[in-house]
Amino acid sequence: MEKEANKVMALQWLGDRVRMIDQRKLPLEEMYIECESAECVASAIKEMVIRGAPAIGVAAAMGIALGAKTADVDHSSDLLDEVEQIARMITDTRPTAVNLFWASERMLRVAKENSRLPVEDLKKRLEDEALAVRDEDEEANFKISQFGADLIPDGASVLTHCNAGALATAGCGTALGIIKQAYRRNQAIEVFADETRPFLQGSRLTSWELKREGIPVTLITDSMAGHFMNRRMISRVVVGADRIAANGDTANKIGTYSVSVLAHTNGIPFYVAAPMSTVDFDITNGSEITIEERPHEEVTHFGGVRVAPEGVRVANPSFDVTPHKYITAIVTELGVALPPYSKSLKEFL
Amino acid sequence: MEKEANKVMALQWLGDRVRMIDQRKLPLEEMYIECESAECVASAIKEMVIRGAPAIGVAAAMGIALGAKTADVDHSSDLLDEVEQIARMITDTRPTAVNLFWASERMLRVAKENSRLPVEDLKKRLEDEALAVRDEDEEANFKISQFGADLIPDGASVLTHCNAGALATAGCGTALGIIKQAYRRNQAIEVFADETRPFLQGSRLTSWELKREGIPVTLITDSMAGHFMNRRMISRVVVGADRIAANGDTANKIGTYSVSVLAHTNGIPFYVAAPMSTVDFDITNGSEITIEERPHEEVTHFGGVRVAPEGVRVANPSFDVTPHKYITAIVTELGVALPPYSKSLKEFL
Repeated sequence: MEKEANKVMALQWLGDRVRMIDQRKLPLEEMYIECESAECVASAIKEMVIRGAPAIGVAAAMGIALGAKTADVDHSSDLLDEVEQIARMITDTRPTAVNLFWASERMLRVAKENSRLPVEDLKKRLEDEALAVRDEDEEANFKISQFGADLIPDGASVLTHCNAGALATAGCGTALGIIKQAYRRNQAIEVFADETRPFLQGSRLTSWELKREGIPVTLITDSMAGHFMNRRMISRVVVGADRIAANGDTANKIGTYSVSVLAHTNGIPFYVAAPMSTVDFDITNGSEITIEERPHEEVTHFGGVRVAPEGVRVANPSFDVTPHKYITAIVTELGVALPPYSKSLKEFL
Repeated sequence: MEKEANKVMALQWLGDRVRMIDQRKLPLEEMYIECESAECVASAIKEMVIRGAPAIGVAAAMGIALGAKTADVDHSSDLLDEVEQIARMITDTRPTAVNLFWASERMLRVAKENSRLPVEDLKKRLEDEALAVRDEDEEANFKISQFGADLIPDGASVLTHCNAGALATAGCGTALGIIKQAYRRNQAIEVFADETRPFLQGSRLTSWELKREGIPVTLITDSMAGHFMNRRMISRVVVGADRIAANGDTANKIGTYSVSVLAHTNGIPFYVAAPMSTVDFDITNGSEITIEERPHEEVTHFGGVRVAPEGVRVANPSFDVTPHKYITAIVTELGVALPPYSKSLKEFL
């Protein structure tokens, strides 16, 4: 797998710290934050310096490894306690993306399984595991891109919602990975990016990431997607996922449900792209997924400027659930799952 | 019909000028612009100082009356020429809302029919006609509100998109007129307002107008409407219209089509509220409606701040077309039209 120069990297492990591009500042400024503590990583996840389900999973693993590495303890049993506390702090940041819980549990399991090792060896083991989480995500992205690009015909016009790109993962992205791969194979594709209110991941991140890769993209407001589908100007939809239930119901950025209904109504294939770590086999369907409510200023303010009347009531659910019946296929690193997902996803295990 | 103190007024005729609240500045500032020429009125329509199909219809009539009144001509035939030029200038501002064309044609017809009157009498006749257009719109709003409120049951939770309120008309509003009337009858209703990107008529205007009237409103992004419908938190949708084809296909603010599909999918009644002047019997269906493309800065910038990468390609259609099959009823001042609209709307004539 070829690594590319000039690749967008959401986060990097620098041995004694985690470096993250500050996604709140894009596209106006390309600024980086360097975390030297697990607390800093947790806060970066909560404040959305870094976002995107796979990326915050990797960040969680790195945060735990960093917290362990900097822990001032003499015994591995104390380190295990410390790691448990850090994992709790990190999983408390955001409730919807399952990757955060998955990565934390994986790190915890490694800590427990190796708790008889000397402290320094255990620290090293955790660092190795965090890097494995990162490398596996990069590899998964690559495979998802390959599998998914097979679903994008020449001349396709692809809509994506939010940002499921390099900025949301440790690799080339899931939904955007597919788009990039399809573009590399045959440049006859067009991309529409929903701006993705309220946080504007589409206008700020996806259009920036695609432009940087030289892929032509048209930015639209979320309210325009249906119009362009109805006008036959969109022929495929590809999105990422924050949590996929065993039956295929998919939590993703708010607005994804609407896009799926509009695609279904207009006969347009709707694909979800995600690593298997996003599938939560512990829940049978989407109604069991906790939906995060984000600060209301995301809706009432814009770049620090208020755009709504003072004191107006606001709702700001950050995710919604797309019922499996509107999903044409789920693209994972293990292959393309087709309905019924309760069967096809399980078969990948 | 009772006039209320403290009523929001989008525009007022002041005898020698037209006063308009500058809707671009709301809700942060309540500023007024006073136009002393038809050119000023045309520019106010184009720049969206004033917007909303019925309101720009009334503004067009007032602009023509004002242009006639200030015309320096000795003969009525010269005044007629002048009025024709002004009408062209005004109808050139925005292509979608039919009320603009309807009001201009009505003023032109009056000018032609009375072109044998002395100049001053003709000027007076045009002023009277503009005021009649205004008064009829106010009256139509009132009747629409009454008819429409019958469709809103106690305990309803009503979603509206864009602003079809006092700020969009010469009266209490169409869609918001219905909501206000339903609230007056029984306060057990809830309102959700889509923020309505890119121009934010929902967050800036609708939530301001409803709050000012003491009606509880929850502001959401456009991408959330489907989520709340799916969660059974919205039980009715009411929107305005910019142009209704003879078959009921309705052009309205971009995003309305998506809302209609989501309502249909979730079994939620979807009502269009508009005066008969919005019905364009000259076109058989929505495909014949010209969709205005607005400046791209509306999408890439927010309160003067850029939020998308420099040079990104943007689409900004300002309207979309909702097929008649997704419309449960069209509420007009002459009554509630039910499908098939090609029959029911014509019967009102």
